[in-house]
Amino acid sequence: MIKIGLLGLGTVGSGVYSILEKHSENLKSKIGTGLQIEKILVRDVSRQRDIDFDSGLLTDKAEDILDNPEIHLVVELIGGEEPAYQYILKALNNGKSVVTANKLLIAKYGQELMKLAAEKGVSLYFEASVAGGIPIIRPLRESFAANKIERIYGILNGTTNYILTKMTGEGQDLETALKEAQRLGYAESDPGSDISGADAAYKIAILSSLAYETVIDINDVHIEGIENIEPEDIEIARELGYLIKLLAISKFTADGVDIRVHPAFIPENHPLASVSDAYNAIYLHGDSVGDVMLYGQGAGRLPTASAVVADIIQAGKEIYYGSPDINGDIYKNVHKVMDISQVENSFYLRLQVKDKPGVLAKIAEVLGKNQVSLASVIQKHRQNPVVPIVLVTHQVKEENLQKSIAGFKNIGEIVAVNNIIRVEEL
Amino acid sequence: MIKIGLLGLGTVGSGVYSILEKHSENLKSKIGTGLQIEKILVRDVSRQRDIDFDSGLLTDKAEDILDNPEIHLVVELIGGEEPAYQYILKALNNGKSVVTANKLLIAKYGQELMKLAAEKGVSLYFEASVAGGIPIIRPLRESFAANKIERIYGILNGTTNYILTKMTGEGQDLETALKEAQRLGYAESDPGSDISGADAAYKIAILSSLAYETVIDINDVHIEGIENIEPEDIEIARELGYLIKLLAISKFTADGVDIRVHPAFIPENHPLASVSDAYNAIYLHGDSVGDVMLYGQGAGRLPTASAVVADIIQAGKEIYYGSPDINGDIYKNVHKVMDISQVENSFYLRLQVKDKPGVLAKIAEVLGKNQVSLASVIQKHRQNPVVPIVLVTHQVKEENLQKSIAGFKNIGEIVAVNNIIRVEEL
Repeated sequence: MIKIGLLGLGTVGSGVYSILEKHSENLKSKIGTGLQIEKILVRDVSRQRDIDFDSGLLTDKAEDILDNPEIHLVVELIGGEEPAYQYILKALNNGKSVVTANKLLIAKYGQELMKLAAEKGVSLYFEASVAGGIPIIRPLRESFAANKIERIYGILNGTTNYILTKMTGEGQDLETALKEAQRLGYAESDPGSDISGADAAYKIAILSSLAYETVIDINDVHIEGIENIEPEDIEIARELGYLIKLLAISKFTADGVDIRVHPAFIPENHPLASVSDAYNAIYLHGDSVGDVMLYGQGAGRLPTASAVVADIIQAGKEIYYGSPDINGDIYKNVHKVMDISQVENSFYLRLQVKDKPGVLAKIAEVLGKNQVSLASVIQKHRQNPVVPIVLVTHQVKEENLQKSIAGFKNIGEIVAVNNIIRVEEL
Repeated sequence: MIKIGLLGLGTVGSGVYSILEKHSENLKSKIGTGLQIEKILVRDVSRQRDIDFDSGLLTDKAEDILDNPEIHLVVELIGGEEPAYQYILKALNNGKSVVTANKLLIAKYGQELMKLAAEKGVSLYFEASVAGGIPIIRPLRESFAANKIERIYGILNGTTNYILTKMTGEGQDLETALKEAQRLGYAESDPGSDISGADAAYKIAILSSLAYETVIDINDVHIEGIENIEPEDIEIARELGYLIKLLAISKFTADGVDIRVHPAFIPENHPLASVSDAYNAIYLHGDSVGDVMLYGQGAGRLPTASAVVADIIQAGKEIYYGSPDINGDIYKNVHKVMDISQVENSFYLRLQVKDKPGVLAKIAEVLGKNQVSLASVIQKHRQNPVVPIVLVTHQVKEENLQKSIAGFKNIGEIVAVNNIIRVEEL
């Protein structure tokens, strides 16, 4: 019998509890022995809860789990940095295996925690920390182990994907789509880290660390959110054969790791373009396997719990048979992260200009001076003194694009630079 | 050092050889020890080969590998039933772990071979037997272990998917598209088992066996190929908002396992509809994880070899650390397969009828008598004595549809039943 201590009984915790109950016979046959939840850490033991269980399991003292010699496996589902970090450290130090869904901790302390687990001869698994129910951590470590991973494109945040899907399909503006996402429970009441791209940044940092076997500092990830996406951008994207997605991108290049999160134009017939609503997907390229896409629900009670329980099964087997995870040093390489100024991309620019002769020539001159060449120009003639112009560049270095934008300040006819969005041909 | 005996040095075998060479340092760090190919079984040791290697590795005697006490791991890449089956039996009996890409053997003898491996305390892995480089065997056994898998839809044959993509995108007929597939190396010179659906049937049988933990007899799988798909069908499908794909379907129902391979209409906005050319995908539904899709290259030298090498790494670790695969009895349940006559579907029917008054009433009468109700009728009026009629039914039991077709023989105005294709809303 494997005895489990559960830290947290929120959405995912209660999902894990109910899967362990519902599938207990089946899980027992898969592991060779049963799983038993011995203790559950909660903030308030007296609170009424939706699920039906022995309230004697509850405790509000972490040491009842972390210092309990009966417990083999600690499942951390509190989230956030503290006290989750201290709890995991203590569990590992006390010789317990750990399963966690905590993206922040793995992104920040993955190397330290994996090293500690190896020293203590226990396992540390975190499949649910990225993309919920989609298997990606284990495939990266095992199924694609015979590959050099060259690039990863992820739609890793369900809230923003839901919002962009609604903006695209129904012409909604961001605010309306966000409210609907909140009403449906896809977005939290404070959606800041979703909208800003920060949530996706933790996830792409974790995936890149595993893919390139290196430590990626989250502070080195260039992050832009979807705050500025307007219905006009989505409409023009579609006219040009693209959709706008919040993309997490990671490329292994000779100049370093190109890693960033930002809205991007992607071709409308690419498999990632069919990832709609709150779904997530990871599209990666390995030197042997070629292109692979893994698609599914990136959040939610049961999908996330499904990934947590898969890790519990794995850790449970290892505890039962006395054979802990053999991970070697999964962060053994040192690779620098490219500065965003050095990254090349094609860019979409939407400007408002005064409709006077010669304005396009002035824009072209500034761009030319900065080695920015244009792939296309769309100028819609409207009966207004101020008209929109859309420019799409060829591949240019980001710093040259930024210099051009700075140069636009000297062109009096440019009323506003409404938006700048990178174009990824994938 | 893990010593490997390779059976076969064809397309996949040479891919495995080159990945083991190219990634040898990296693989060593992942396993904890190096991998070394000790012997390679080939038919003709004197033949000139594309890859560069020590010809002393080659042998034409299987016993040099199977009876060689130095060899820990046998990798079977010959394919087909015999002698591959005898070789694997002997390897397992001699206490060697086995990795194979052989779908036929796993579909037919999976249970027996897994049992033998468990008895001998060795591992048997077969990730590459289904969908090449796409990780699906390991996810089914591990990542989705906390789920009851309720249905699986697969595009599991690259040749037919390539052909249907060309027929759809370029209006080619089957023969032209097949020739192009052969020219590009996507189809073999004898594409019989691809076109007929037999290849996909082995694969869906393997996936279903693992998903439901039961033995599926390949003879119980209902199989139809793409032989009869005509450009007209594809055109009408598109008008109705569908694409035609060769679908491998497996559903766990209260009446048994509904398992079949046949062409099907699928909605054009479903993620499976974006699986084009020679790509494969598996779209499955688990009770916890919800819908998941895994997409990638289902065949080819390096993608398939990538999956084989992932299995080699896993088996290699287990050999090195003395901890063989713990698989329990992965075929422990008994479930019957539904007879196709009892399966319910919506159907597309394309008929040629004489353009006379009352013909539709006669057709409707036969359908009504057999409890077949219509969702839509498309009758294109053309200036011909014989015109096409397209019918789409609601969900009906297959036997009722078949009785209706038999009843059509009594309607003199029906010149031909051109095609009957199932509609899957997914």
